[in-house]
Amino acid sequence: MDDVHIRWVEKVQLKDPVLVEGLPGVGNVGKLAADYLRDKLEAKPLATIYSKFFPPQVYVSEEGLTRLVSNELSYRRAVGPKERDLLILNGDYQGITPEGQYELTERILSVAHSLGSKEVYTLAGFAQGRVVDTPRVLGAATSPERVEAMKKFGVVFSRNDPGGGLIGASGLFLGLGRLYDMHGVCLMGETSGYFVDPRSAEAVLKVLARILEVTIDFSDLEAKAKEIDRIAQKIHEAEAHPPESPSPASRDDLGYIG
Amino acid sequence: MDDVHIRWVEKVQLKDPVLVEGLPGVGNVGKLAADYLRDKLEAKPLATIYSKFFPPQVYVSEEGLTRLVSNELSYRRAVGPKERDLLILNGDYQGITPEGQYELTERILSVAHSLGSKEVYTLAGFAQGRVVDTPRVLGAATSPERVEAMKKFGVVFSRNDPGGGLIGASGLFLGLGRLYDMHGVCLMGETSGYFVDPRSAEAVLKVLARILEVTIDFSDLEAKAKEIDRIAQKIHEAEAHPPESPSPASRDDLGYIG
Amino acid sequence: MDDVHIRWVEKVQLKDPVLVEGLPGVGNVGKLAADYLRDKLEAKPLATIYSKFFPPQVYVSEEGLTRLVSNELSYRRAVGPKERDLLILNGDYQGITPEGQYELTERILSVAHSLGSKEVYTLAGFAQGRVVDTPRVLGAATSPERVEAMKKFGVVFSRNDPGGGLIGASGLFLGLGRLYDMHGVCLMGETSGYFVDPRSAEAVLKVLARILEVTIDFSDLEAKAKEIDRIAQKIHEAEAHPPESPSPASRDDLGYIG
Amino acid sequence: MDDVHIRWVEKVQLKDPVLVEGLPGVGNVGKLAADYLRDKLEAKPLATIYSKFFPPQVYVSEEGLTRLVSNELSYRRAVGPKERDLLILNGDYQGITPEGQYELTERILSVAHSLGSKEVYTLAGFAQGRVVDTPRVLGAATSPERVEAMKKFGVVFSRNDPGGGLIGASGLFLGLGRLYDMHGVCLMGETSGYFVDPRSAEAVLKVLARILEVTIDFSDLEAKAKEIDRIAQKIHEAEAHPPESPSPASRDDLGYIG
Repeated sequence: MDDVHIRWVEKVQLKDPVLVEGLPGVGNVGKLAADYLRDKLEAKPLATIYSKFFPPQVYVSEEGLTRLVSNELSYRRAVGPKERDLLILNGDYQGITPEGQYELTERILSVAHSLGSKEVYTLAGFAQGRVVDTPRVLGAATSPERVEAMKKFGVVFSRNDPGGGLIGASGLFLGLGRLYDMHGVCLMGETSGYFVDPRSAEAVLKVLARILEVTIDFSDLEAKAKEIDRIAQKIHEAEAHPPESPSPASRDDLGYIG
Repeated sequence: MDDVHIRWVEKVQLKDPVLVEGLPGVGNVGKLAADYLRDKLEAKPLATIYSKFFPPQVYVSEEGLTRLVSNELSYRRAVGPKERDLLILNGDYQGITPEGQYELTERILSVAHSLGSKEVYTLAGFAQGRVVDTPRVLGAATSPERVEAMKKFGVVFSRNDPGGGLIGASGLFLGLGRLYDMHGVCLMGETSGYFVDPRSAEAVLKVLARILEVTIDFSDLEAKAKEIDRIAQKIHEAEAHPPESPSPASRDDLGYIG
Repeated sequence: MDDVHIRWVEKVQLKDPVLVEGLPGVGNVGKLAADYLRDKLEAKPLATIYSKFFPPQVYVSEEGLTRLVSNELSYRRAVGPKERDLLILNGDYQGITPEGQYELTERILSVAHSLGSKEVYTLAGFAQGRVVDTPRVLGAATSPERVEAMKKFGVVFSRNDPGGGLIGASGLFLGLGRLYDMHGVCLMGETSGYFVDPRSAEAVLKVLARILEVTIDFSDLEAKAKEIDRIAQKIHEAEAHPPESPSPASRDDLGYIG
Repeated sequence: MDDVHIRWVEKVQLKDPVLVEGLPGVGNVGKLAADYLRDKLEAKPLATIYSKFFPPQVYVSEEGLTRLVSNELSYRRAVGPKERDLLILNGDYQGITPEGQYELTERILSVAHSLGSKEVYTLAGFAQGRVVDTPRVLGAATSPERVEAMKKFGVVFSRNDPGGGLIGASGLFLGLGRLYDMHGVCLMGETSGYFVDPRSAEAVLKVLARILEVTIDFSDLEAKAKEIDRIAQKIHEAEAHPPESPSPASRDDLGYIG
């Protein structure tokens, strides 16, 4: 096995596809958004990516079936003249070492490049360390033109955020992408950073949908966001009126949703 | 030396051998079971596996002889028409890094595959975090057919266990095995997770013996289990009636058995 | 991508260039000095060095533009007969693992060697663990001749400092440089070790400017040093007359300067 | 540069040389013994071993000269018919990762093998966790014949020591040596494990000198041992009659000797 092993589901010809990346990270915002995008657009499996830079782990389904942890590339052909072909990257993990991050990102960019991709959108969460009621979508981009273009979609370019830069896949796909002559944008949904945040994912995805000119039904993501709100509310109440009765919900519940 | 170095003891032709893996892990259940299987079936040494992914360590025997830590493949030819040829993997360690886990598992699967193996059974412990009087054998498998087949042997497929999936060799042999068109099953003996557990190993091995249609004398494993019970009982008593007299046995004793 | 990827800006012929290294480290002395040298001599970009031994990170500018972390080689041709061609190494990070340190240093030395470089000056800070009012410049060198030559420039060779040797790029460029028949000197500015220290960088660079016989305007570096002094003074005062009013400056400010 | 880089000082033909390894470790016993052996036998430098598995570090001499950390092979031709040619391995560090340990040991064994070496003696300390007045020399070996042979030299083969086996170079040279058809013995001097222990090194070296039938003047090593005794005695006295006057020696002093 190579360090990164690509198992192709099918071979496709795509036309100038846009790569969309959304892997686990802060608030799982990027993963929630990219998974939702893939599901709602009914993107088709293109390739599975296994790697020794992921944990040595299989997931076990409720039916008892094992599945090696992986990343997955899906594709979706443009419908109508305004849309563009899409390549969507989803997955269980980012590379678990710095070197693994580089190797995986480089390999996936190489695949996307060979499929004709010249543009990448990376989706992520931006931890504010406080509850965020109405998450803004912060941006970073590889060119001034893209910064200006993004502002028209309401993306916020903040002087100080992200202060220390972007660490992990969402930054690396932009940074390494330049070595493949790819340009791109990172869309970061504000989030508390304390739990998975479908509301922030929705904010990010709404911006992306407008950019890509695709129509998505957000009702399922909104339902998930409301479920999180409901649990957070219960925790809040339980903490305000503490030890008389057992808390109807615990912080742990939040981790399971999403 | 390669990253993984295989030293062959002999070259053999096997017929569709079943690979059985049992390396150190939770409660040492997998290792206890696989070592016992190898010993009772008098499997013959086939290859020794050295690797820089193991610790830089030699064991020293009571006679003062050194032995480099390793994994070992043994084989046992089928006796009678119902049995199948077996390949058994035992060892001192799993790979000590995630990358090492992948490299070792991949290499050993490659060897098994070249010997004609299409099926793997991995043996492991499943930590329940509490004393388990009568350990059940939980399962995970690579195909729905195998899940159904295992249920007939009393293997339990629990909706929520193992929740986070399987980490380490027992999961990886199934997950990576699919890249070699191998199918497989993981058999997990319930155990407390606090000490080595021959009783759980016995439960696992009894299921495996029925699956493989081999006959094994379990008396030595039962004796070992009773010894653990005896020590655990003494500890229990000592803890119930504590500081008057020195404890006749300590928790440390449990680590030495097995 | 190779482990270390060099992206050339242009191809140049240089005449016996002196390599000057200054990467982040103690008090950021080496980086401050080398960055200032590059800027004031208006050295031209020669190559950008990307590597999986750096963190998987992009920086985001105030304008929202991303830039993958890297090291950079610049060059500056000699002006007049006394000067020599220069190769200057600046960067965001040193390699983040010991192996990465070796790989990066070796690769950059190889590039410098191929450009005809036979001599290297490494710039660093030396942590004294106490406030240093007038930083001395300590030295270490690859040959007795160089030790003697450096003494004439006021470089101090102390019997006990640095006691444990030099760890990181500044030492490695000298140590590995010998394998390329390169000789060199490490110039270490004394510093407290508690914050970035432009005054120590200035001391180092003044020695280097005399060695290289280049003229540099130090006013900007002095201004930066005074700014640090001013902040340190405020902190000192705030600590002397503590909790009445909020401190006008905090220790955190020191980290931002430089 | 390769992962392990060998720089030859000269090319020699040796006759069945015995490899002696002594690198830093418990009580620095192995290093003290091997360095003393090299010095007293006036072994000649054969090769310097650099590696990215060592720390990225140079040492700086009192004269200000840098030296990249390394291991070194020296050789000494037999004098008279009873002696044998020797290859001695000394060094600043063992490999700092498990993988590095394997790679370095394997490479050095490969070199020794190519020089005709079939036998290795590894020198180490064995930490007893208590003061050891008269250190015994414990042993481990690759063959029963060697165990018996060693007993005649007073080497102790203890049923339980070393319980967990040998970790690091001294064990690995024996374990990996078998892959090169080399046999060997580890000689372990008992030591407290709390400080460098020339007395334990002397015990080990006295046994080795008898085995190799070489004559060594131990007076310098004894002087060093007495110096340690003297300091330890002062610490002991200071701790017995504590806080009246400042301790004339501190535990720190012990670390500097050797």
